[in-house]
Amino acid sequence: MASAVEIDAMRRALQLARRGPRGLNPQVGAVILSPAGEILAEGHHRGAGTPHAEVDALSQLSPGAARGATAVVTLEPCNHTGRTGPCAVALIEAGVARVVYALDDPTDAAAGGADRLRAAGIDVETRIETDAARSLIADWIHLQRTGRPHVTVKWAQSLDGRAAADDGTSQWITGPEARRDVHARRAQADAIVAGTGTVRADDPALTARAADGTLLEDQPRPVVIGESETAPDAAVRRHPREPLFYATHDLAAVLADLAEQGVQRVFVEGGPTLASAFVREDLADELLAYVAPVLLGGSRLALGDVGVPSIDAARRLTVASVQPLGDDLLIVARPVETGIRSPETVPAAAGENEGDA
Amino acid sequence: MASAVEIDAMRRALQLARRGPRGLNPQVGAVILSPAGEILAEGHHRGAGTPHAEVDALSQLSPGAARGATAVVTLEPCNHTGRTGPCAVALIEAGVARVVYALDDPTDAAAGGADRLRAAGIDVETRIETDAARSLIADWIHLQRTGRPHVTVKWAQSLDGRAAADDGTSQWITGPEARRDVHARRAQADAIVAGTGTVRADDPALTARAADGTLLEDQPRPVVIGESETAPDAAVRRHPREPLFYATHDLAAVLADLAEQGVQRVFVEGGPTLASAFVREDLADELLAYVAPVLLGGSRLALGDVGVPSIDAARRLTVASVQPLGDDLLIVARPVETGIRSPETVPAAAGENEGDA
Repeated sequence: MASAVEIDAMRRALQLARRGPRGLNPQVGAVILSPAGEILAEGHHRGAGTPHAEVDALSQLSPGAARGATAVVTLEPCNHTGRTGPCAVALIEAGVARVVYALDDPTDAAAGGADRLRAAGIDVETRIETDAARSLIADWIHLQRTGRPHVTVKWAQSLDGRAAADDGTSQWITGPEARRDVHARRAQADAIVAGTGTVRADDPALTARAADGTLLEDQPRPVVIGESETAPDAAVRRHPREPLFYATHDLAAVLADLAEQGVQRVFVEGGPTLASAFVREDLADELLAYVAPVLLGGSRLALGDVGVPSIDAARRLTVASVQPLGDDLLIVARPVETGIRSPETVPAAAGENEGDA
Repeated sequence: MASAVEIDAMRRALQLARRGPRGLNPQVGAVILSPAGEILAEGHHRGAGTPHAEVDALSQLSPGAARGATAVVTLEPCNHTGRTGPCAVALIEAGVARVVYALDDPTDAAAGGADRLRAAGIDVETRIETDAARSLIADWIHLQRTGRPHVTVKWAQSLDGRAAADDGTSQWITGPEARRDVHARRAQADAIVAGTGTVRADDPALTARAADGTLLEDQPRPVVIGESETAPDAAVRRHPREPLFYATHDLAAVLADLAEQGVQRVFVEGGPTLASAFVREDLADELLAYVAPVLLGGSRLALGDVGVPSIDAARRLTVASVQPLGDDLLIVARPVETGIRSPETVPAAAGENEGDA
């Protein structure tokens, strides 16, 4: 059983974890408690190649100061030598008497830390604030499982599935509440992806903005996929983060490269061609359809070829929620078969993804 | 104020009204109460050309038996001579002392009965069970206001607006709950409309059926619109009610003819071409989109040309409800501008629609 003091410390560790960057490694936080329950040190992970959270916390203490202490960590201390040594060993060498952690390490490469701690005679307690800890690093876990970032594909459509009227006009199909929701979700992504065709036709800024047009604090990195040129004066080139251009149609390769750059979460809203391609290639984890209460008819479809020749091959979805946004509806859905393996069959992590802690 | 006995009598009159047919005239019921509150007689209207409900009830009494009685009627007694004389006069001549009715007559031609009764010294009370009385004859009121039946246009679609996969296969996009809902709604309509193209391609029975395939009690009349021939062995020709064939594309003329045949409510589910035409010509009062959680892509659209060249002309809808049906969603919507005038500006009724009572 974890004590109330330890649960409080875990909540603090989760706060600390959020200070670290989203990137190749998960966000992890740690708190060192004295035997009397006082906070001796706090730490968090600052990104690949830097000390893991437990080591960051221990480094603030003078030698011997952690003897008999309790380490409270949001992720199972690692048992893996990557750019840094195993945290389990660091905790053992520091002489801690007890380790409390929230979430088992989901990677084969880094797992086993708890066993190693126990083998060294350390008292190990787990499953404290586990849901919050899992939620915090859900995208990183997804990346470990699938080898690619979590992909959300968003589109706006009329009830009859059109993205625009027949002459191409589309502003605005959906209302201000829907647009605000889109911008909030953009800000939660690490990258926002559009196709070169859409960039050329609509010249989108690909920024996350508040209702008054000001930039939100978190900006996704703009990513432009496709083989046509993007104009020198395109709005995306004035994005606060430098755009990435991929002159390819190989979406899987783009996602793999983004993963190597520490992108855990991708927001695709780059037009019908790109949205259809992500669906067709089974690379979408989450679909957001903003459905406006209008009928448009005509040829400007929100989705084109999604690779369904016959009804047996229909891309079946699980609807997670249907939410009114002003006059519009937001339908959040997941493909029924995403190719994601279940947690029971997590493969070994890619070499570079050492896992913090 | 109406007494509790009179309110009970009105509820009984509403039950009696339902015994009458849906057709050119509204369904109306009447109860004659003695001064002591006992039911002396009951009546209802049996269709155009037959006695109105009050007269039907009075006719069961010996001369003078209604003197001093109270007539409880679901619709304002008419003040109009059509195939039958004004009911207001019949009540005056019968010597009733009091008339209680639920709903003002919405037609110019038949209205004024209450004034005529009052002028004859009869005590008149109204607005009893008014909502129930209006709901009972809502389709007839719609027909008086617009000159055509109430039109529901139904279609099933994938989330991305397709009616079928690219090779034309579509069974089943939607699930059993959605299909059951469709059949229940068919049974509430007076006519079910399909296009000749759909009849040829799908050979639909156009019946209202229970989940086990048996026919429901109420069957809409099948109506086939279009210029291609319907095969002699088409399933629609085995419908329990004789099909109507209209070899035309003039939907307004078809609706006007159906109205003349006593059709108050039409259920259109005859394929994308016909559905689009009803929307395009602004002849739809209610839209039912059964949205299946699948993506299909491709060219088989649930709606085609709805007459929207540019976004300014988008057919805006008011969403009345979004209802899960199994895995599917039923979105019920109304066009924002239907051409229906508001109740405050009800025009004179067409000559033949004399209105019961």
